[in-house]
Amino acid sequence: MTSHETVCLLNAGDRVANVSLTIFYADREPAGPYRVTVPPRRTLHLRFNDLTDPEPIPRDTDYASVIESDEPIVVQHTRLDSRQADNALITTIAFAEQG
Amino acid sequence: MTSHETVCLLNAGDRVANVSLTIFYADREPAGPYRVTVPPRRTLHLRFNDLTDPEPIPRDTDYASVIESDEPIVVQHTRLDSRQADNALITTIAFAEQG
Amino acid sequence: MTSHETVCLLNAGDRVANVSLTIFYADREPAGPYRVTVPPRRTLHLRFNDLTDPEPIPRDTDYASVIESDEPIVVQHTRLDSRQADNALITTIAFAEQG
Amino acid sequence: MTSHETVCLLNAGDRVANVSLTIFYADREPAGPYRVTVPPRRTLHLRFNDLTDPEPIPRDTDYASVIESDEPIVVQHTRLDSRQADNALITTIAFAEQG
Repeated sequence: MTSHETVCLLNAGDRVANVSLTIFYADREPAGPYRVTVPPRRTLHLRFNDLTDPEPIPRDTDYASVIESDEPIVVQHTRLDSRQADNALITTIAFAEQG
Repeated sequence: MTSHETVCLLNAGDRVANVSLTIFYADREPAGPYRVTVPPRRTLHLRFNDLTDPEPIPRDTDYASVIESDEPIVVQHTRLDSRQADNALITTIAFAEQG
Repeated sequence: MTSHETVCLLNAGDRVANVSLTIFYADREPAGPYRVTVPPRRTLHLRFNDLTDPEPIPRDTDYASVIESDEPIVVQHTRLDSRQADNALITTIAFAEQG
Repeated sequence: MTSHETVCLLNAGDRVANVSLTIFYADREPAGPYRVTVPPRRTLHLRFNDLTDPEPIPRDTDYASVIESDEPIVVQHTRLDSRQADNALITTIAFAEQG
């Protein structure tokens, strides 16, 4: 994946959405959770490269992300890569978090 | 986002669909609702730049949209941007509208 | 829409799928149904420009399509347009056909 | 389809996912199942051209794939073709396998 991967989060509701991202790799344990909050009735654009806590995401490494929220949100996942367009993975499904 | 963002609405049913769009921003309250109607058994192509009531959508500003309809419709959201292709966000889900 | 719009139908089941397509326009009644069959355990690639019965699809005209099948199928809708990539509209939903 | 088609499998759960892929063609019986496993909390990138057992996938031939798993997984299907971007077909639905 490229260094320009971003995710757009939309919180259309009236309560703050507490969001956690977990990053999965091919050959090591997942990293995270990375935590962000989206205010009510707001959007948040997030660059994966800006995530540094608890650890930066290594460059030139394939990964996948699971995004959880305590409020319903809409997630649109985009790579700024001229060859590809990705699907939004809307993931408010239950998932046992790695901490 | 570019100035060429469009949405295609399909009303495959036999009743008029009353549609409202709400635009969400990163750092201000949402704008809208913008209202359009789609006749029965018709498509409607809408350019976001053509939306002016209650207010135009600012250029060079990130935003997200929520689309509601009182009849089932199919929504396909497209950006005419050579780097990206977006997903259709089919949003007939319940949502407390900002007026 | 371009003249290269195609749809890929996958019938992963063990019975013939009888498929009908209805084409919706902005300013006239829908056309169709166009009928095709997909054999069991087979794929079918269909070019919209090849649809001629009951009438050809006009060039340089925006349209939308609804695809129905009497068996579960997977539909992937693609435009060979360098600027855009479309979503597969999986439409086995009930719909009162125009004949 | 091109020779660069890949699929990214994400197993966000805590159990090994046993995955089987079946390849469907326009004019012959399906091939497969091709079997891979995804460890718990890991991603797996798979190139269709690397699938050789029970038989290689012919080049320059249209095909479709059905992916089944005994654990919930997320599937993202990508073609490295500058003109197109495909949808992820998330297929954990029941399906009578061809052997």
